[in-house]
Amino acid sequence: MKATIVTIGDEILIGQIVDTNSSYIAKAIDKIGVQTHEMLSISDDKQHILNTFSNLQNKVELVFITGGLGPTKDDITKKTFCDYFDDTLVENEDVFLHVKELIEGIYKRPISQMNRDQALVPSKCEVLFNKVGTAPGMWMRKENTVFISLPGVPYEMKYLVENVIIPKIIREYKRPFILHKTIMTYGQGESLIAERIEDWENNLPDFVRLAYLPSPGRVRLRLTARGENREILQKAIDNNVVLLAKIINDIIVGFDEDETIEVVIGRLLTQQNKTLATAESCTGGKIAQVITSVSGASNYFRGGIVSYATDTKISQLNVNSDTIKKYSVVSAEVAKEMVIGIKNAMNSDYAIATTGNAGPSKGEAEAAIGTVFIAIATPDEVFAEEFNFGQPREKVIDRTVNKAFELLQKEILKNVQ
Amino acid sequence: MKATIVTIGDEILIGQIVDTNSSYIAKAIDKIGVQTHEMLSISDDKQHILNTFSNLQNKVELVFITGGLGPTKDDITKKTFCDYFDDTLVENEDVFLHVKELIEGIYKRPISQMNRDQALVPSKCEVLFNKVGTAPGMWMRKENTVFISLPGVPYEMKYLVENVIIPKIIREYKRPFILHKTIMTYGQGESLIAERIEDWENNLPDFVRLAYLPSPGRVRLRLTARGENREILQKAIDNNVVLLAKIINDIIVGFDEDETIEVVIGRLLTQQNKTLATAESCTGGKIAQVITSVSGASNYFRGGIVSYATDTKISQLNVNSDTIKKYSVVSAEVAKEMVIGIKNAMNSDYAIATTGNAGPSKGEAEAAIGTVFIAIATPDEVFAEEFNFGQPREKVIDRTVNKAFELLQKEILKNVQ
Repeated sequence: MKATIVTIGDEILIGQIVDTNSSYIAKAIDKIGVQTHEMLSISDDKQHILNTFSNLQNKVELVFITGGLGPTKDDITKKTFCDYFDDTLVENEDVFLHVKELIEGIYKRPISQMNRDQALVPSKCEVLFNKVGTAPGMWMRKENTVFISLPGVPYEMKYLVENVIIPKIIREYKRPFILHKTIMTYGQGESLIAERIEDWENNLPDFVRLAYLPSPGRVRLRLTARGENREILQKAIDNNVVLLAKIINDIIVGFDEDETIEVVIGRLLTQQNKTLATAESCTGGKIAQVITSVSGASNYFRGGIVSYATDTKISQLNVNSDTIKKYSVVSAEVAKEMVIGIKNAMNSDYAIATTGNAGPSKGEAEAAIGTVFIAIATPDEVFAEEFNFGQPREKVIDRTVNKAFELLQKEILKNVQ
Repeated sequence: MKATIVTIGDEILIGQIVDTNSSYIAKAIDKIGVQTHEMLSISDDKQHILNTFSNLQNKVELVFITGGLGPTKDDITKKTFCDYFDDTLVENEDVFLHVKELIEGIYKRPISQMNRDQALVPSKCEVLFNKVGTAPGMWMRKENTVFISLPGVPYEMKYLVENVIIPKIIREYKRPFILHKTIMTYGQGESLIAERIEDWENNLPDFVRLAYLPSPGRVRLRLTARGENREILQKAIDNNVVLLAKIINDIIVGFDEDETIEVVIGRLLTQQNKTLATAESCTGGKIAQVITSVSGASNYFRGGIVSYATDTKISQLNVNSDTIKKYSVVSAEVAKEMVIGIKNAMNSDYAIATTGNAGPSKGEAEAAIGTVFIAIATPDEVFAEEFNFGQPREKVIDRTVNKAFELLQKEILKNVQ
């Protein structure tokens, strides 16, 4: 069972915004055994949309369309739908009452014609009622293909996918099984890992595929099994993961696809009833932000200080000004004093500190661009390590964040009973 | 002159990673007058790649291909290239020496066969030398279409686009002009703006298109003019922006496409020689992170405190515990004490503080999920405003960040001479 995901909007084609909707939809339908055949971004042009629909007709079972449903864009997408399905627009009573309530009741404005037009839908379509916004989704079948149109606003699209579309597909379609297992590794590059596991990879059964997903400092290995018999797939995955773990046991740090390192750290800290604090210079708050992106972070995250200016390292983190003079602000010594300072200030069990030069210019530090010191404090010790993460700025910041979590996780794991 | 951007990789089609490469390429080529006709994500499958190449042949002048060039994926993309172009792989001397130097010289490892294979390229291709990684780019023409293959690692891809491909296209192709102008507005919704500017929009010349780009709390209006005569395009854009500014003067906050609000704030603070500090609770460091994502932020950003736990608000920000007891931790009073605390602690001219309940659970605060207080301190005053940003968590955080910048910018603008 195959789907194609189509995004409509010139703003994507000129690179003004990144399309994250397609990725969300692909992940959601993959979990219920629907394979995304292609993703496609096209312009707001009527003929372009019509050509795309024709090309996809009877090639895939489902076509997801996002974008082109806002109040100012309604006309083209809905009219194109009417053209393609030989249909006309009619006002949907439920949608109209919902739009009216949102505009008049919540936003406290008189309803306008443009608002009212949001309730117009093709007469043959099945309306996907959008509780969290004004533009409804639409579900329309032609021969062997269903076209599903969704608003482009991410949280509205997500609401409809999660609450309306996924349950509907599960009810109405028979689907094969797709199982994934992701193995997270740290510290070795893609080609080195590939050499170590070459024999194992060559012996994988036909219905199991391996993918390498490298990102700064880590490589995820993803196994995908696809077929009709869930047990056979699960067994093949489980057996091969055991075999793999024997070969690269030294670099495996986790197993679950959705389990990012910040989630793993959060779980470990919660289990151990321990807390964490952060002192950031070159990472500018990103470590704190990633930690607090996890629901429930308030159970273990005490807080953080972004000591961007040198004198705030002294005033807020109690770093000794002589240490800065002697070793410079980008140094192991300063990183260690920062991590001790934050651990004391926040009264936490663990702490992370970063100081470095992310570029693009050298700033007040003498260190080369890309030089970063990461310090970790545990209940028992304090240490700092030096890294050079090269350029550009965004890469240095991302690699520092990843490496800091990696160092911290190792320390926390030492204390697991 | 048209291009299609193709991304190869199953990891995109199952939604495991979001494709940001296509957006980067689209933006880069748009600036030199190359129009992106479509973006396409396809699987690592040889036949799928070959079919895609055939479909695009002679339909567009340029096909950009990213992904499928890592050390473990080399075989399929390069062999598919050889199939499509009826070519064979040969070792490129320059690339080999570069790979050897990187692996042996920098990574201090013996070179392996897999590393060596990275230097294999189709004999007829023009090699795009990749200084920042091991996989070279490739430029191959067939009839009226050039196929450009690039590594999927974002900073390697960016290096080649910026330093090799864009200069090459400028040298070798005659292109039309594409001009954009983006008008940033705050505080009114898409449909309300559309009604206000309807007459103006209907009077735009044929070669000028308008797009609405809504995001939480703000709408960007983008004008695009396309044609052979740069002066005519520029004049049409300039005249229409002046006319537009007369109609919606009250909500326009800026004009440049790349000028995000954090960049504008940074420029204003630098001009005025003023500084900024942040105290964040529900936004968890995101405001600091966005501020420090701007190069040169060290000129005006003093630092921030992420006071996630309630008692750190007391110990780090000097919030009075009685205030918390009396008004609760999510309140205007606490937000104001936080902003005063951080301004004093960091010795800054301006400060932002946030406290709220981003969900998904209610936590220790009594406030409803989505309730946020934002406080702003200026050299002259302190105030706090209450908002409800609904759900889910990510939307609450993003809207809080945007709204905080909007409030701050207004205050800074009051002090512009």
